[in-house]
Amino acid sequence: MKIGFLGPKGSFSHHVAQEAFPTDTLVAFENITEVVKAYETGEVDYSVVPVENSIEGSVHETLDYLFHQAAIHAVAEIVQPIKQQLLATAADKPVEKIFSHPQAIAQGKKYVRQHYPQAKIEMTASTAYAARFVAQHPEENYAAIAPRSAASEYGLQIIAENIQEMAENFTRFWLLGQSIPTLSLYPKEKKITLALTLPDNLPGALYKALATFAWRGIDLTKIESRPLKTALGEYFFIVDINNEKEDLVSFAMKELEAIGITYKILGNYTVYTISEQ
Amino acid sequence: MKIGFLGPKGSFSHHVAQEAFPTDTLVAFENITEVVKAYETGEVDYSVVPVENSIEGSVHETLDYLFHQAAIHAVAEIVQPIKQQLLATAADKPVEKIFSHPQAIAQGKKYVRQHYPQAKIEMTASTAYAARFVAQHPEENYAAIAPRSAASEYGLQIIAENIQEMAENFTRFWLLGQSIPTLSLYPKEKKITLALTLPDNLPGALYKALATFAWRGIDLTKIESRPLKTALGEYFFIVDINNEKEDLVSFAMKELEAIGITYKILGNYTVYTISEQ
Repeated sequence: MKIGFLGPKGSFSHHVAQEAFPTDTLVAFENITEVVKAYETGEVDYSVVPVENSIEGSVHETLDYLFHQAAIHAVAEIVQPIKQQLLATAADKPVEKIFSHPQAIAQGKKYVRQHYPQAKIEMTASTAYAARFVAQHPEENYAAIAPRSAASEYGLQIIAENIQEMAENFTRFWLLGQSIPTLSLYPKEKKITLALTLPDNLPGALYKALATFAWRGIDLTKIESRPLKTALGEYFFIVDINNEKEDLVSFAMKELEAIGITYKILGNYTVYTISEQ
Repeated sequence: MKIGFLGPKGSFSHHVAQEAFPTDTLVAFENITEVVKAYETGEVDYSVVPVENSIEGSVHETLDYLFHQAAIHAVAEIVQPIKQQLLATAADKPVEKIFSHPQAIAQGKKYVRQHYPQAKIEMTASTAYAARFVAQHPEENYAAIAPRSAASEYGLQIIAENIQEMAENFTRFWLLGQSIPTLSLYPKEKKITLALTLPDNLPGALYKALATFAWRGIDLTKIESRPLKTALGEYFFIVDINNEKEDLVSFAMKELEAIGITYKILGNYTVYTISEQ
């Protein structure tokens, strides 16, 4: 099978794709829209896309594309703990300049200030880009803050491990596909993600929508409004719903329809966790 | 007065600071946390921080910091339409490489593919960084996708105007300060932003919280759950509330307290719009 992921190689998306599909062909794409489109057009069998980071929040490029354009949905979710490493071409070199994505820089700032107070910081568009750039300039005293998998991908040394400040940093990835994949990963819970479009003025209708779940004791694990883009001030709502009581959830969804609230299923999936990398 | 903003110069934050405080001293900071801290420690009198982009969503670095650490809040909101320009050191040069932030690249991709199909694309951490980098390399055939204000800041030529694909792209900025500033901008509406912490299991309590507003006919313009970071699966909720009926909103807030829902006021502000730049 062919699996699409958000490149370049050595990214967290790449690691998730490797863990989920260790023996398949993995194909890197430049941005999230390209990854989703690759699945949509049949170029790949599954696509791996990030949907939410615990610090940065929802990945709107993914969720908005699925809501507005695509008739596809998530068949599995993989939760990846985010740990950042300091990488260089050799362990014994001085470090004059450190490259990384702004969020990874913010996470590693305390460590860097303590151990490399003289190093200059340069921001890049992603951690994997930073690692690739450092690997391409072995003559310079450069380092990158990037995932562990970027070290093996680009032949870099880990000169400091797990330098991030915040312990709880993880990213949710969705597998987009037609059928539920067989994954040799540890299953955690079942969830369903709906995008609700409300027929009415916001507070009353949202309140009714939540009532259909609240009355049945069904937990929502996330709620977020997103602009509909048709008119300013109109919204749709992304809700993540605990789907352990599948019967009750399906009754609640029927009730939503009955009271005129339309929804699109963005995902119906088991959540898997993978080990820190 | 001294005003802090998210640098480098020529960024959208810089433009907002200039529009709001045309005669004051503007000070650039490296990241959002530094901008907020500059106000917290009294280094500046007001800070300008982004809170939400209509495409990318909430800026969690801002909202989380205000919720978790700071006892300060927004006293005004400024909405900035986002338009992207193609900038170079001279108008008649060929363009071999185009630099910008991933979102601006996505927005300008269609234009670039049509007019510069041979150009290579390089991602940077922000649009203003891209403009500064292009200005620093006049000997190269480089261009940047960046705001109009970056052109004057770095002495670049606008070689193509408003190249973004999506018409509706705007960013909300908050002014953090002690007192309401006198702005010679066009006022639009009054809003209040609360961070709610629910005492109970999520669906029932959120449903009750929304009821206090729904029953009074008060519009919510945004709702978003955010992880509390104390325990996995616990959340706080950011709600933006239309504050035109101030009495009714204050009754609703008293009722929230009465039923055991605690809140922190993140902002109580008039919304201003500024012209496209």
